[in-house]
Amino acid sequence: MLANPDLPPPPNGKYPAKAHAKRVAEYIKDHGGPSKGVLYLEAQKTKMVEDDDQAMHFRQRRFFYYLSGCPLPDSYLTYDIQKDHLTLFIPPVDPEDVIWSGMPTTVDEALQKYDVDACYPSSEVNTHLSSPSTPHSTILAIPNQISDHITFLSFDETDLANLKPAIEYCRVVKDEFEIALIRHANAISSHAHTEVMRMVRKARNEQELMGTFVGACIANGGREQAYGCICAAGTNAATLHYVHNDLPLDDKLNLLIDAGCEYNCYCADITRAYPLKGRFTQESREIYDIVDKMQTDCMKMLKAGVKWEDVHARAHQVAIEGLLHLGILKGNKEELFESRVTTVFFPHGLGHYLGMDCHDSGGDANYADPDPMFKYLRVRGRVPAGAVITVEPGVYFCRYIVEPALKDEKFSKYIDEKVLERYWAVGGVRIEDDVLVKEDGCENLTTAPRTWEEVEALING
Amino acid sequence: MLANPDLPPPPNGKYPAKAHAKRVAEYIKDHGGPSKGVLYLEAQKTKMVEDDDQAMHFRQRRFFYYLSGCPLPDSYLTYDIQKDHLTLFIPPVDPEDVIWSGMPTTVDEALQKYDVDACYPSSEVNTHLSSPSTPHSTILAIPNQISDHITFLSFDETDLANLKPAIEYCRVVKDEFEIALIRHANAISSHAHTEVMRMVRKARNEQELMGTFVGACIANGGREQAYGCICAAGTNAATLHYVHNDLPLDDKLNLLIDAGCEYNCYCADITRAYPLKGRFTQESREIYDIVDKMQTDCMKMLKAGVKWEDVHARAHQVAIEGLLHLGILKGNKEELFESRVTTVFFPHGLGHYLGMDCHDSGGDANYADPDPMFKYLRVRGRVPAGAVITVEPGVYFCRYIVEPALKDEKFSKYIDEKVLERYWAVGGVRIEDDVLVKEDGCENLTTAPRTWEEVEALING
Repeated sequence: MLANPDLPPPPNGKYPAKAHAKRVAEYIKDHGGPSKGVLYLEAQKTKMVEDDDQAMHFRQRRFFYYLSGCPLPDSYLTYDIQKDHLTLFIPPVDPEDVIWSGMPTTVDEALQKYDVDACYPSSEVNTHLSSPSTPHSTILAIPNQISDHITFLSFDETDLANLKPAIEYCRVVKDEFEIALIRHANAISSHAHTEVMRMVRKARNEQELMGTFVGACIANGGREQAYGCICAAGTNAATLHYVHNDLPLDDKLNLLIDAGCEYNCYCADITRAYPLKGRFTQESREIYDIVDKMQTDCMKMLKAGVKWEDVHARAHQVAIEGLLHLGILKGNKEELFESRVTTVFFPHGLGHYLGMDCHDSGGDANYADPDPMFKYLRVRGRVPAGAVITVEPGVYFCRYIVEPALKDEKFSKYIDEKVLERYWAVGGVRIEDDVLVKEDGCENLTTAPRTWEEVEALING
Repeated sequence: MLANPDLPPPPNGKYPAKAHAKRVAEYIKDHGGPSKGVLYLEAQKTKMVEDDDQAMHFRQRRFFYYLSGCPLPDSYLTYDIQKDHLTLFIPPVDPEDVIWSGMPTTVDEALQKYDVDACYPSSEVNTHLSSPSTPHSTILAIPNQISDHITFLSFDETDLANLKPAIEYCRVVKDEFEIALIRHANAISSHAHTEVMRMVRKARNEQELMGTFVGACIANGGREQAYGCICAAGTNAATLHYVHNDLPLDDKLNLLIDAGCEYNCYCADITRAYPLKGRFTQESREIYDIVDKMQTDCMKMLKAGVKWEDVHARAHQVAIEGLLHLGILKGNKEELFESRVTTVFFPHGLGHYLGMDCHDSGGDANYADPDPMFKYLRVRGRVPAGAVITVEPGVYFCRYIVEPALKDEKFSKYIDEKVLERYWAVGGVRIEDDVLVKEDGCENLTTAPRTWEEVEALING
């Protein structure tokens, strides 16, 4: 598993921690919070596997990373709003540990690496917090993310309400550096998807596809998967949260692979669906073409200020047109839309914000929405320029969803069961790309082959 | 990344949960615990990533797995000692979840799959615990592994002392099925090591080696790594807990790769060290030969009842002979042994038990031992037949350990600094295999190429 020499280089320079701190402080002020004081954040802790002597898988706390760009566990930071002064505290060097683990990041190295004004060993956090040199008014922190040994006694007030939502909403609009990180996670993941397409005809089991994907990501610097990889062959593709990834391919028709890696805490999230043997059947192509048009039409609508509900609704309208044309649905377009019958075949939301979390913060989902078309939509309202959002329409033939619908008068009158019969083997098709929203349009950050012609060409060498 | 068609098939049949339960109950009785009552265990819980909507990486609780063979989260079990009756409780089917995730394991399927007498949905645990049909005397459980909603009110006594150590010590001696699982984890991991050897001359960065290893494991059914993979090139190999795995290979001399996967919760743990360009230099071969002899001589001593300290001491004696021969050490063998100077080059223990944990339970390490030769030994005392133990001697040239020793009169008088100078570039050599201890000898479960001739041949195709 060699690295791809044609991959663009990763972004260099410092992660803009200071600009993020400033932005968060301004957001707090603009939303009725304090205009002075100190922001306080903690990194994720090293935790041991229960009943074992190994550390658990480490995932940096995103709130901390946003204001530090520092991946080190057991670290801390303070940001003095008035002084515009960002201070990082990292674990001190433990001589016993150096013998086994080598030199860790030192305070001097951290000052070089991270966009902070000062750096100290973490043993000095409390001293710093109680230093009289800082005009201590309010300390802003996140509930349940304050270690027991930390004391805020020298502050007049502790504000646990404003910091977390401020970071969550600031994270929606990405800056150039963040976009470059997402672009790089996409370059690595797109390459890994290409590697899977190249070997899929020779594979015999889903786990070979997963091994290829994960191996290719690691070889190119994407050590972590952004989420649990879905490698679903045949009708497994109709299971949206398929986790097994270990069943034989046998003579199944299509593959759905939803997989992406992280790069420096930023995610890619990409889905491709294609024939295991390299040639779409007529039915598979028909469904692929519908999903392709759902995605293409939605992308055309994307620009700053678009209402995500409108884009999602457009995907359903394209699905109605396509499924009507195939004869799977019957009836009139407006009535079909009002009936929500397409939620039987496209039950999930069109997409979600993407950033440090795969389902990134600030989307304002409303899972209590009684309307089945919108209740699973992870982004509600207007999408700003600078947001990165996934566009991931799909059409699935899932027995656990379609069969009850066929027994429900509300839906069954619109579905032609006889025509539907021909499509079960298609399983499910989803096409998912990561898209940067701009003032007057959008840019697709995902470079994996997407059209049926590109995909067929690659699979067949 | 295709699967290896020549890999032996994985063990089939049921994991012997019932026999384990019986064995644990007998151990408790034999060690002064109650001879009747109910053993109670809980599976690991599904936990969400903090501030995110994804589940954390799941690792089944080993105590629970040992008495169930069941990998499902959020499950429970009881074992009635007198009735010899093992009952499993698994998560009930959630219809809303089936739509997204497909059908989970049902009670009927669990009865087929697992070696238990009865199975119920986990919603019935408390009802079962308070059923008057069981003669309720003592319930035995593990501290901090009892959910808040669970009630032991119908029991006369709660014993939190005996269950955990009983399982920990029973786990030392493996049965045929467990050995087959460790053997299979070794077959997959050995194949993955072979894949890395095959591509190492073409690679340019440690991460390509890690990607190859992890990808090959997944492709062959080893989805989880048993521990954090160490891919250390050049002098990085002298860092025992090297974690970066992302540095360029450049013109570095040797690679040390310590990596193994899990198969159905059972581990492999394998280290190989070899020249990146396929030919050992004289100095590298000299060190490799010493470590090879350390391992070979130790394996010759292995049989039921051997004292692990004696085997570990033998490794140090071989190191002394070898390093004396090269001129890195000077002095007389007995004096060198008493001085503990070889702990400067071989600072860690010879090996550890291997099973469901990579550092498996029951080893009785004594980290408070003031003797530097034995303080890091993870197994103390006599090794029984049926134990699986790693034999992993090494010789390292680690500046953080050797340089202070050169300034310490206690050690420096035995080390020839001028001769040593030629060996820094070797980095470190460790050879690690997983060995089954038998009545009259041992069996090496690791099949990865081991001798320098095999390794050179494979690297050079």
